[in-house]
Amino acid sequence: MMIDRLIEQIRLKKNPCIVGIDPEWRKLPECYRSHTSDEAQGILLWAQDVIDAVADIVPAIKPQMAFFEVYGPQGLMVHQQVVRYAHWKGLLVIDDSKRNDISNTAKAYAYAHLAGDGPVNADFMTVNPFLGSDSLEPFIEEARQQDKGLFILVKTSNPSSVEISEAKTADGQAVCQWLAGKVQHYGKDCIGEYGYSSIGAVVGATYPQEARELRQLMKEQFFLVPGFGAQGGDAAHIAACFNDDGLGALVSSSRGILYHYQQNADPQPSRAAYQEDVRRQARLMRTQVYHALCEACPKLAY
Amino acid sequence: MMIDRLIEQIRLKKNPCIVGIDPEWRKLPECYRSHTSDEAQGILLWAQDVIDAVADIVPAIKPQMAFFEVYGPQGLMVHQQVVRYAHWKGLLVIDDSKRNDISNTAKAYAYAHLAGDGPVNADFMTVNPFLGSDSLEPFIEEARQQDKGLFILVKTSNPSSVEISEAKTADGQAVCQWLAGKVQHYGKDCIGEYGYSSIGAVVGATYPQEARELRQLMKEQFFLVPGFGAQGGDAAHIAACFNDDGLGALVSSSRGILYHYQQNADPQPSRAAYQEDVRRQARLMRTQVYHALCEACPKLAY
Repeated sequence: MMIDRLIEQIRLKKNPCIVGIDPEWRKLPECYRSHTSDEAQGILLWAQDVIDAVADIVPAIKPQMAFFEVYGPQGLMVHQQVVRYAHWKGLLVIDDSKRNDISNTAKAYAYAHLAGDGPVNADFMTVNPFLGSDSLEPFIEEARQQDKGLFILVKTSNPSSVEISEAKTADGQAVCQWLAGKVQHYGKDCIGEYGYSSIGAVVGATYPQEARELRQLMKEQFFLVPGFGAQGGDAAHIAACFNDDGLGALVSSSRGILYHYQQNADPQPSRAAYQEDVRRQARLMRTQVYHALCEACPKLAY
Repeated sequence: MMIDRLIEQIRLKKNPCIVGIDPEWRKLPECYRSHTSDEAQGILLWAQDVIDAVADIVPAIKPQMAFFEVYGPQGLMVHQQVVRYAHWKGLLVIDDSKRNDISNTAKAYAYAHLAGDGPVNADFMTVNPFLGSDSLEPFIEEARQQDKGLFILVKTSNPSSVEISEAKTADGQAVCQWLAGKVQHYGKDCIGEYGYSSIGAVVGATYPQEARELRQLMKEQFFLVPGFGAQGGDAAHIAACFNDDGLGALVSSSRGILYHYQQNADPQPSRAAYQEDVRRQARLMRTQVYHALCEACPKLAY
């Protein structure tokens, strides 16, 4: 099961933190931007340097599809190369693309992003559940067939996420709680040898009380937790997303790691200096989260 | 304003119906599949034939991004060529991609799909609102800057759409009603010379009572109405989505037009015979919807 491979990586690196690959050209260090006038090629070089810098620290990377779509077909080619490079370096890849649609259309997205012979071939992808259960099922089905995984949006980290996720369904549950039940239900058929499911949920770090409640509703699920650092989630809040064994969540940071260099004394680092900064931030995140887990998780399993 | 161009096309063709471009390889007529072993190239030829067949009948086409993503970078290249070909034939293009995310990521999607110098350069795109207002604003902003349009999912045509869209927000409204208010509000800054906004809503044809209510909440909005034909919406239901002037909605059909040929006596038509079937179905849809509007819209404006 794909979730077992993720857990093994987390144990190996003693780290449930991952790095988002969010290439925004204007924010990249000058050394990548002056390297080429071809932005997509510059981004590939940068992404490979980031992967090299964190490959022995993190279990997975999370490329954000939007930043590759900006470059059209060439951007998708770079995205493919980033996925392949990460796989070659032994990392898992979470394709953050928040795709969604119904019936055959949902099936096409699931194939495109998850299939081993498809163009993306990610290990996990994020999915938006707004259209309801019948829109999720083709993604679940493809994940099961391909032995891949999903993270279904349940409660995101942005301020407005409450507008819909806290609305009440017919039986009086909040939409996010109702979704938690759905995700737990769909996940039952994909439980791996460590007791976790390949079907997980996106749960923002910015709402710790809700995260604790959702944790109770989805004990076998991994949470993909964005919003560490830049979006205001901190390590103590994040502990609420984990189970007692220190598993059950992946904490993601993008800007806080990728663009931290802008706060340094030298805002125009060399490639090596930039990579060192990325490594330092990725290690710092691991230390902060691991420390919080040591305090909060009596049965920490790694 | 982009919405004015759409209305002028509707008036010119006396038709508020559009054709979805949903290429599923196994469903294409044999004449396209045997033409080439390169599926993406076969799809381009097919899509151009469909566009040629309907260009004087419909105001716009709606390519479904998922079916192009299946082919990775090459699929995106074909998608670009389909958009350009449709524009060259005088048709507007609604990019059905249901993108969604927050802050800079949403901005990147909006740029990629709507910007005149971006890779897709669609005239309208569909957007999923699950993440709330702050996730919609970057799309609204880009649409305004580029003079393009949006269709925000409010109530979709699939059976499960009620699960979230009928949940109740804090003030007791259904999520779809609350969204209608948001869309109406966002749309105010993009009203064109005919009184309609470039910011519209996706409202399924399968729930006529709800469509009538949503129509009251969004008088200046165009509804993108999928689900005609294959998904069970019929012409009488669809009239509920329009205003008295016969404007305010675009009715979309994909399978009912593209794959109708499979029901004919000759299931292996030539390209010309296939195009004739597509034309016939597109005309039939126009006739059915126009007839329903003549009955239902006392002030039919075209």
